[in-house]
Amino acid sequence: MANIRIAIVGYGNLGKSVEKLIGQQPDMELAGVFSRRASLDTETGAAVWPVDEFASFRDDFDVAVLCLGSATDIPEQAPEFIRHANTVDTYDNHRDVPRHRAEMDRVARENGTVAVVSTGWDPGMFSLNRTIGQALLPNGQQQTFWGPGLSQGHSDAVRRIAGVHKGVQYTIPSPEALDAARKGEAGLTGKQAHLRRCFIVADEADRARIEDEIRTMPDYFVGYEVEVNFIDEATFDAEHTGMPHGGHVITAGDTGGFVQSIEYNLELERNPDFTGAVALAYARAAHRLREGGQSGAYTVLEVAPYLISPTPLEELIARDV
Amino acid sequence: MANIRIAIVGYGNLGKSVEKLIGQQPDMELAGVFSRRASLDTETGAAVWPVDEFASFRDDFDVAVLCLGSATDIPEQAPEFIRHANTVDTYDNHRDVPRHRAEMDRVARENGTVAVVSTGWDPGMFSLNRTIGQALLPNGQQQTFWGPGLSQGHSDAVRRIAGVHKGVQYTIPSPEALDAARKGEAGLTGKQAHLRRCFIVADEADRARIEDEIRTMPDYFVGYEVEVNFIDEATFDAEHTGMPHGGHVITAGDTGGFVQSIEYNLELERNPDFTGAVALAYARAAHRLREGGQSGAYTVLEVAPYLISPTPLEELIARDV
Repeated sequence: MANIRIAIVGYGNLGKSVEKLIGQQPDMELAGVFSRRASLDTETGAAVWPVDEFASFRDDFDVAVLCLGSATDIPEQAPEFIRHANTVDTYDNHRDVPRHRAEMDRVARENGTVAVVSTGWDPGMFSLNRTIGQALLPNGQQQTFWGPGLSQGHSDAVRRIAGVHKGVQYTIPSPEALDAARKGEAGLTGKQAHLRRCFIVADEADRARIEDEIRTMPDYFVGYEVEVNFIDEATFDAEHTGMPHGGHVITAGDTGGFVQSIEYNLELERNPDFTGAVALAYARAAHRLREGGQSGAYTVLEVAPYLISPTPLEELIARDV
Repeated sequence: MANIRIAIVGYGNLGKSVEKLIGQQPDMELAGVFSRRASLDTETGAAVWPVDEFASFRDDFDVAVLCLGSATDIPEQAPEFIRHANTVDTYDNHRDVPRHRAEMDRVARENGTVAVVSTGWDPGMFSLNRTIGQALLPNGQQQTFWGPGLSQGHSDAVRRIAGVHKGVQYTIPSPEALDAARKGEAGLTGKQAHLRRCFIVADEADRARIEDEIRTMPDYFVGYEVEVNFIDEATFDAEHTGMPHGGHVITAGDTGGFVQSIEYNLELERNPDFTGAVALAYARAAHRLREGGQSGAYTVLEVAPYLISPTPLEELIARDV
C-alpha cells in the first residue's frame, strides 16, 4: 500500500515536531511544507511550497496537518484549506470548537474532503477520556488537571517584571486535589487544584521585590499556592529551556457502595512533539475516512479508534483485544 | 426519546452488577433477566424469563447483556442469542477473540443484529488504550500491569493448602517495573513485573509450613516476590472479602530526544461493577448502531467513542472537547 503523503502547513514548533515524527510512522511520508517564507530550510530537506499556492499542490499530498496558531490562523485559514484537501488541526479554543467544527463540516461536505478538528491532547486525548469516563460512570465526579507543565502565559508574565533576566513558571496539580479526585470527592477546584512554581534568574538585590511582585500579581498568581525559586543562569539553561507538559483526567464514581477510579495521565517532555503525534495519528484517520467515501468534519469523539493505528484491524484485534 | 430496554442474561456477580448499574444510566431501563432458574428473585424485582425462551421475548428488549462465563457459555451460546437480538458480551479469552468476533459478525449480519464483543476492562478499556497508545507512539514501549487485584486462581490455590481456614491472594504490580515502563524502558516483565501478596487465616502451629508451601508452589508462586501475611479471622472478614482489581496500561516512547509517557490506570473496588459499567455503555452503542441501520460484530476498537455516551454529540463537543 502506498504511504500516506503528509503536507505540513506552518513551520513553528509544532510543524517541526510533525516533520520529525513522520519518520517514526511506518506508513507515512512527508510531501512538503507550506510556508509564507520562501527561503525556508527544512530539517529533513523537504520541499517548501508557498502557502498561497496551497490549492495548486492538492494532488501532491493526501492530508495537510495545519500547524498554525489557534488565536487567528486556524479559524481564518482552515475553511479555505479544507476546500482543497483533507486537513487535521489542533484548534484549542475550547469554547469555539462547536462553531469551528460546524464550519469545517459544511465546507468539507461541499468539497468532498475530510477534516479532523481539535486533535492534540487537550482538546484531543483528554476530550476522549472525559467523554468515555462520564459514559462509564455517569454519577461520577470528573476533574481535569494540567501539569506539571510549562505555562507560556505565566512565564511571559514573570519575565515582564523589572530585573528578571530569565524566568519560567510551571503549573503543578496539587497532590491533595489529585487524591480527592481519585476518591471521587468533589471540592478542590480552580485555584486550590494547582500550584504555581517559578524559577527565576535575577540579581540578589532585586529578589525580594521580584518575589513580592509575583505573589501579588492579580489573576495570574493571587489566590494560588506560589513557589518562587531563584537559580543561577547555568542551572536555568540546563534545566528550564524544555517544553514539558502533561496532566490528568480523573473520573471516579460510586457504583453502589464501591468506588471505581479511572485515570488518564500524560507526562510529556516536549509538548509540541506529543501534540504533533496525536495530529499525525488522526491524519491517518482522515485519509482512511476519505478513502472510504466519507466527507465532513470529525472530532476525536467521532473517529473509531482503530482508524488512527497503522496496524490493520484484524491484527489489532488479535494483538490488543 | 424512549429508554433503551436492557435484558440481562445470567444472574451471577456480573448480572447483579449490571442490574444495579442500569439505575445509574439516564436513558436505560431493565426489561428482564433471563435465567435457567425459574424461582429466581431479582434485587430490583425485575421480570425473570426462562433463557430457553430467549427468542420469544425478542420484542421486549433492545439489547441483551450476556453476563455469562467465558470458559464455555459465551462461545457456545452467544451465536444463538445474536440470531434474535443485539448483544454485548465480556468474552475475555483473549486468544479466541478474533474467532468469536468473526462468528458473531457472520450470524449478526445474517440476522440484521449488532453485537459488541469483549467489552469490560481487559479486554475492553485496556484494549482501547493499547491500540491508541501504540498509534501515537509507534516506536514506544508498551506494558500492561494488572492489580492491585484479587486473583481468583491464586486465592483458590492457597486455600487448597491444608490448615488454611481462609485465604486470598492479591497480585500487585512491582513499583520498579511501573517506573521503568513510565520511562519507556523495556525489561521488567512477567515474574519481575508483579508481586504476590497473601492474607491467610490459620492456626499458629501451621503457619511456618503453610508459608513454605505457598513459596514453593510451582507456576503460581515460585519465581515471584511473595509476601505472606497471617491475620485473624475478624480482620479477614472485614478487609478481604471484596473483589478489588485494576491495573495500568503504560506506553512511553522517544519522539526524538524527548520521552512522552501515556498511562491509563484503573482502581476498582469491585471488579464486576466496572466490567458491567463498560458493558452497559457499549450496549448503548449496540442499540444506536442497529438503529442507524448497521449490523455485524464490533470490538471496542471499532466503535466511535461518542456512541457510548448518554449525552448527545453536540453537547459532548461543547462540554468535553
